[in-house]
Amino acid sequence: MYIPTFDDMQAAHARIKPYIHNTPVLTSSYLNELTGAELFFKCENFQKAGAFKVRGASNAVFGLSDEAAAAGVCTHSSGNHALSLSYAAGRRGIPCNVVMPRTAPQAKKDAVMGYGGIITECKPSTTSREEVFAQVQARTGGDFVHPYNDPRVIAGQGTCSFEFIEQMKTEHGGAPDMMVAPIGGGGMISGTCLTLSHLAPDIKIIASEPEQADDAYRSFKAGHIIADDAPVTVADGLKVPLKDLTWHFVSNHVSDIMTCTEQEIIDAMKLTWQRMKIVIEPSCAVPLATIIKNKEQFAGKRVGVIITGGNVDLDLLPWTL
Amino acid sequence: MYIPTFDDMQAAHARIKPYIHNTPVLTSSYLNELTGAELFFKCENFQKAGAFKVRGASNAVFGLSDEAAAAGVCTHSSGNHALSLSYAAGRRGIPCNVVMPRTAPQAKKDAVMGYGGIITECKPSTTSREEVFAQVQARTGGDFVHPYNDPRVIAGQGTCSFEFIEQMKTEHGGAPDMMVAPIGGGGMISGTCLTLSHLAPDIKIIASEPEQADDAYRSFKAGHIIADDAPVTVADGLKVPLKDLTWHFVSNHVSDIMTCTEQEIIDAMKLTWQRMKIVIEPSCAVPLATIIKNKEQFAGKRVGVIITGGNVDLDLLPWTL
Repeated sequence: MYIPTFDDMQAAHARIKPYIHNTPVLTSSYLNELTGAELFFKCENFQKAGAFKVRGASNAVFGLSDEAAAAGVCTHSSGNHALSLSYAAGRRGIPCNVVMPRTAPQAKKDAVMGYGGIITECKPSTTSREEVFAQVQARTGGDFVHPYNDPRVIAGQGTCSFEFIEQMKTEHGGAPDMMVAPIGGGGMISGTCLTLSHLAPDIKIIASEPEQADDAYRSFKAGHIIADDAPVTVADGLKVPLKDLTWHFVSNHVSDIMTCTEQEIIDAMKLTWQRMKIVIEPSCAVPLATIIKNKEQFAGKRVGVIITGGNVDLDLLPWTL
Repeated sequence: MYIPTFDDMQAAHARIKPYIHNTPVLTSSYLNELTGAELFFKCENFQKAGAFKVRGASNAVFGLSDEAAAAGVCTHSSGNHALSLSYAAGRRGIPCNVVMPRTAPQAKKDAVMGYGGIITECKPSTTSREEVFAQVQARTGGDFVHPYNDPRVIAGQGTCSFEFIEQMKTEHGGAPDMMVAPIGGGGMISGTCLTLSHLAPDIKIIASEPEQADDAYRSFKAGHIIADDAPVTVADGLKVPLKDLTWHFVSNHVSDIMTCTEQEIIDAMKLTWQRMKIVIEPSCAVPLATIIKNKEQFAGKRVGVIITGGNVDLDLLPWTL
């Protein structure tokens, strides 16, 4: 198991810069008043392909030798990694095969196809996903870019916090006290740990998770990975389990994992749309939901929050269902 | 009739700066490709109180002498002016009475009350609105801040284009060729005309309007104001008619008025949410709808678009009705 380093993250940043946005950091006086904290939102919903995952995917795609790139790339993903990898592969002009659960939002499937990705559907469970993927990989011979348990991907996701710390220093008077990001497989959290443990080790890193998919929370408390096969949550990006590489970062650098209910996620999502006027996915409402739920732990602090993506099926908004 | 000047706009800008945001200018490579134009969106949906109208309202409120301010302010509005005036009055600590149609979105009524505004409801027609307002004004004695036919308000709205031109020069390589904004009563368009006719008279100013509330279009063609009493359109901010002061600016400085259907507005609104990940009102989808509809007139041009507001009732999205 190769553990990506701070140097890997810096190399990733130089490599992917032409293909990604340095997304803005937004604030909301309403949400500051509501929580008693000073919140700084790194808005990866404005990222290329609509999510932070384009960072790791682009690092993997553009790091391939020409020879390796010829057979293209392949992956399995609940959505955003699929379309990020399709986007990056499209920019490099190589094929991209993706296995997606048939229950993934239609908007994400459409976007994958829009970027030229080729979809093979599986059942909405980790077991089925991995089975179908093995067949696709054997058939195409593409380079497997795992959605999170891949050092290239984690190094890429780490560029988000790297930009964020820089923006905090130049635009907002200094680094935050804490950093909160959602946790599913742990790719974004691992990248955050990778960057901050080197650059600003005093910043407390907190992961947020839906109660109904709290395998990372239980793993964290137990001290070893506990995986669920098919959790059900509105936060469709957070259903996947930790793997060895992300567990390394989570177990070594995360201070706490906090959970929240489905209704709390939906309320925080709607509140963000109403007050910040930005379109965010249910997954990225999880940090705000846990901050609102645990106000006393955040009050008076400067808190970075990663808004992970904005790819939502606008015909199926959770508060209208 | 006092016609506000460029100096009035600059005084307004100095006066309201502490109470407003200099909102960002966003771009979308997807929408550029779709339209063949280079689009620059001035995002007043991120403005305080969720809309550009806080500019004019703040200029009126903070321009009052202490003596005049004591009785507070009052107005009638389909929504955003009401909450902008409530916000500004709240910041100054003076009362604000507003007359709103009972059909206005609940989200806007809630926001007005949230800012401390006092609502009196009227029927959804211009006639009823003006009748009920006369009673409220007589009772309270507050200073009447008309939502658009007021030189203080127009000077305030003109600060939006002033910031925009500055942002275009510093961030986007120079002024645009054209500027498109929605037209209802004409407050934003008049402010745009006021600023650009002085600062950058070569920029073509285009107003966009719903076909189902096309009184400005018909007025423009006829050469005099034609008012409808109660037009029906999803673009609820654009139902009001032109008045003498806004007609002055529209008839002297607007190059063209373009219209679009209800479905085109809803499609452009949904597309903006999907691709730009921002929450915008139906009213501010009207410019994009007319640009998509009249591509050949915008192709190859650098086009500024004013996103006027983001106050939407998330439980009543037009594509789910």
